[in-house]
Amino acid sequence: MEPRISLITLGTFDMARAAQFYEDMGWFQTETPDGMVVFDLSGQSLGLYPADQLARDMGVDPETLGTGLSTFALNTRSKEEVAEVIEAARAAGASILKEPHDVFWGGHIAYFSDPDGHVWEIAHNPFAPLAEDVAFRWDGY
Amino acid sequence: MEPRISLITLGTFDMARAAQFYEDMGWFQTETPDGMVVFDLSGQSLGLYPADQLARDMGVDPETLGTGLSTFALNTRSKEEVAEVIEAARAAGASILKEPHDVFWGGHIAYFSDPDGHVWEIAHNPFAPLAEDVAFRWDGY
Repeated sequence: MEPRISLITLGTFDMARAAQFYEDMGWFQTETPDGMVVFDLSGQSLGLYPADQLARDMGVDPETLGTGLSTFALNTRSKEEVAEVIEAARAAGASILKEPHDVFWGGHIAYFSDPDGHVWEIAHNPFAPLAEDVAFRWDGY
Repeated sequence: MEPRISLITLGTFDMARAAQFYEDMGWFQTETPDGMVVFDLSGQSLGLYPADQLARDMGVDPETLGTGLSTFALNTRSKEEVAEVIEAARAAGASILKEPHDVFWGGHIAYFSDPDGHVWEIAHNPFAPLAEDVAFRWDGY
């Protein structure tokens, strides 16, 4: 297998609210099948899907589903862009968990959660600049 | 901002066990800073990080962190590859939530959770073939 993630699906308790949130972030919806809302992530897709249907598809109790033990990092090209993304998230209704701040390893980061509790890390890592095509690898190869 | 995810961080309660799991899946570690383990995901990175440190970084109670309300889909080039990935996951110690099966929209999918409960969907979508560079978009543009 080729290790990769093609689609990240976020379970949501309110499809309209979740879709509005990512719209307000300025992201772009792609054409999608009935019952999902999908945003383009530069060669990857971010899907929104009702939490109860996601649980049913997985065959698990919806009560067991949680957020935050995984985070999604959007890496920026500049330190300043971290604050720009956080302000966009705040305006869209995100809960800001940590405001932009410098961290010991030399980066500049912030955390927010979307209306369903999905956690995003906004990060500028000066030691791992993004490739022209936005590919990200720690060692830059 | 350019919508994208550079790094997906999975919080784990046992770094060695989590790292072994993804090693056993045949994935490749990249060079990484102290305290993390990172695997390459074809232009994106998958990080493993202790759950308690992740909670501290986010400024939240570790007890609130959960899994499964978001899933990570690894899309395959063929229907047969779904079973191959599931067998690799089973051998590595995954819990198979749903064995490979056909779904109403014409796809072929399965779900497993890793040792920390992070949920992966393995999917073949004949209507959205992967690009040569493994980019994935619903409408194939």
